[in-house]
Amino acid sequence: MAKKQLDYTCDPCRDDFALVIRKDAPFNAEPQPSDLVKNYITPLPYFFCRSHGPLPELDDKHVIAISGIGIQAPASFTVQQLKQDFAKKSVVMALQCAGNRRDGLHRVKHTKGVIWGPGAVANAKYSGCRLKDVLESIGLNCQIHDLGKLHVAFESVEECEEDTCYGSSIPLTKALDEFGDVLLAYEMNDVPLTRDHGAPIRVVVPGYIGARSVKFLKSIVIQDEESRSYFQRKDYKILPAHVDCEQQANDYWCKVPSIGEFNVQSYVCEPVDGVLETGSQPGKRLVKGYALSGGGRGIQRVDVSGDDGKTWVEADLFQPQMDTHTTNVWSWCLWTASIHTHRNKRIVCRAVDTSGNIQQEYPVWNYRGVMNNSWRNVDKNENQPSVL
Amino acid sequence: MAKKQLDYTCDPCRDDFALVIRKDAPFNAEPQPSDLVKNYITPLPYFFCRSHGPLPELDDKHVIAISGIGIQAPASFTVQQLKQDFAKKSVVMALQCAGNRRDGLHRVKHTKGVIWGPGAVANAKYSGCRLKDVLESIGLNCQIHDLGKLHVAFESVEECEEDTCYGSSIPLTKALDEFGDVLLAYEMNDVPLTRDHGAPIRVVVPGYIGARSVKFLKSIVIQDEESRSYFQRKDYKILPAHVDCEQQANDYWCKVPSIGEFNVQSYVCEPVDGVLETGSQPGKRLVKGYALSGGGRGIQRVDVSGDDGKTWVEADLFQPQMDTHTTNVWSWCLWTASIHTHRNKRIVCRAVDTSGNIQQEYPVWNYRGVMNNSWRNVDKNENQPSVL
Repeated sequence: MAKKQLDYTCDPCRDDFALVIRKDAPFNAEPQPSDLVKNYITPLPYFFCRSHGPLPELDDKHVIAISGIGIQAPASFTVQQLKQDFAKKSVVMALQCAGNRRDGLHRVKHTKGVIWGPGAVANAKYSGCRLKDVLESIGLNCQIHDLGKLHVAFESVEECEEDTCYGSSIPLTKALDEFGDVLLAYEMNDVPLTRDHGAPIRVVVPGYIGARSVKFLKSIVIQDEESRSYFQRKDYKILPAHVDCEQQANDYWCKVPSIGEFNVQSYVCEPVDGVLETGSQPGKRLVKGYALSGGGRGIQRVDVSGDDGKTWVEADLFQPQMDTHTTNVWSWCLWTASIHTHRNKRIVCRAVDTSGNIQQEYPVWNYRGVMNNSWRNVDKNENQPSVL
Repeated sequence: MAKKQLDYTCDPCRDDFALVIRKDAPFNAEPQPSDLVKNYITPLPYFFCRSHGPLPELDDKHVIAISGIGIQAPASFTVQQLKQDFAKKSVVMALQCAGNRRDGLHRVKHTKGVIWGPGAVANAKYSGCRLKDVLESIGLNCQIHDLGKLHVAFESVEECEEDTCYGSSIPLTKALDEFGDVLLAYEMNDVPLTRDHGAPIRVVVPGYIGARSVKFLKSIVIQDEESRSYFQRKDYKILPAHVDCEQQANDYWCKVPSIGEFNVQSYVCEPVDGVLETGSQPGKRLVKGYALSGGGRGIQRVDVSGDDGKTWVEADLFQPQMDTHTTNVWSWCLWTASIHTHRNKRIVCRAVDTSGNIQQEYPVWNYRGVMNNSWRNVDKNENQPSVL
């Protein structure tokens, strides 16, 4: 498909954001790592922006259409109706782009996509109505035939270069799960969504990559296959390392599953990653970072090393959802550790989630540069025993 | 607690098993890796045995008692009643001991537990009644207050040295999940359970470590905390690497979550792991192995290397549940790959699950030696950059 010319002249002003711009149009930007771990709930100025096209201007009269399998007559709701007719629910959750830390793979070999650092992740309180409540109000429930094979496809008002609009889907089981916490959200951190974050209404899918949390929602369709959108079928997938160009990728898209839940992840945010010069300040140092895992899996441990992985200490974790013994942990974990640092040695960390998954040492490259969760960043000329 | 003297004289004869015995009493044994990957559904002679004490002798008159939160009057069922009164359901699933591949950690430093190789895993068709159906028949359902905080505790008739009996628990949400597939199983591979596998009835919890699939089931209790059993509270947990003796562990058990879902795993079973001498047969070689992940996550890729991880090829996967687009993948994946082998270089593999989790290179040691899923096995005197 030939790339469309899109008009960004009506995009909002972002002067009050403390973000590093990764791409101007569409607007993609992330905070400095040290800013990112200042707050458990990420304030707007430090919240990464991920756009696929010019941002629409919509208000509460905007209509969301719902149709498909199990729905007798197509239904539609304005945002105003959703606010009035359904109970308001909140979820505190980490939103992470599948391309978070793509730079680590891009250093190994060229990747396709916005070159994100470690800041394409944030933690917010979203409020809105439960997708489950809305679907049940129009007749859908867990008794539907073949529930396990159905999908909920979302489309956005957002235009983009790659397809007619932004779209994506999730399994219907996730949408109807009592503990799935999928929302049609109209607030972020107790104020209405801004345009950069999908105003007036977006989907939020806790524990899934950000690509499934469709902004500027315009339609919901229940169907017996995944979304046919470019972004479901030909984009957010982990291709094998030997696939390294678009032509090869075209043969592979249909063989590789779309990413849903994300993997275990952590990062050292303060001091910033890289060689640490401690010449004038030897001894112990307080370091800070984040950790998270997908699918409701909490973080059970973060190991931190001041000597590039030779020795490790256990970090102190701040992860309130783990303490309340809820079914799923959707939020990230902020951690601190006091460690001995060494001249010319990197500080690194690795997290273990509640399923015992742990971050691997070296990046395993993939063409789309998604889901990078290695604990070691590799420079171009460094010995790279297992990067491909 | 002082260790009890237990009587193993009534244990069954196991002459028809092709298993390597890891411990005589209680009986713990596993197949040779090459036997393990001969069949997608593991036949009895190749199915690992994991016992905690002498095996009880019970028949279909054996009674299972159910009580606790949400159950008005304690109920009980004989095995015969469960067979007659509830629909028979089947699930094909991998059962994996949390200690599978403990030998890889034990080579790094002493671990506590039976020193399993890579054969403490198998794939079977279990049949029985759904725990969900049984609980719902006595009044329990998803509307119960605080569902997300409740647990289902199982106790066994099996005596053991460490506690009054074997016991364990799972979240009630898992038991009541329409797609959780937790069974009270009385058949394995279409024949009645043998004593070695929990006759006449056991729990099977797909996607969870084997320790939660309690054999010789005698009671089910719905409660607001995890099982108080030794095996839930003081055993199957991933302790940090600096905890390396019982005294330190005692301070740590309550700080670390019990393992439920297991992590991504794979292993090269044929040829057997270790240095491969190809002196007289250079060139390509067919290798075989298994891969699996916990929590219903399927395997999306297995990379195989004939040169100890320097270069990789993609394996062919046999994993029928992934093709049917079911909600959860509980079975293992068998894989084959044709690779170039090299004199004195190991064959290694690493799997990627549908959440993008991948096996790390070096073992990360823990006292109980659980959840080892590194792709490299480390010999005692080898350079070990990240084992602790």
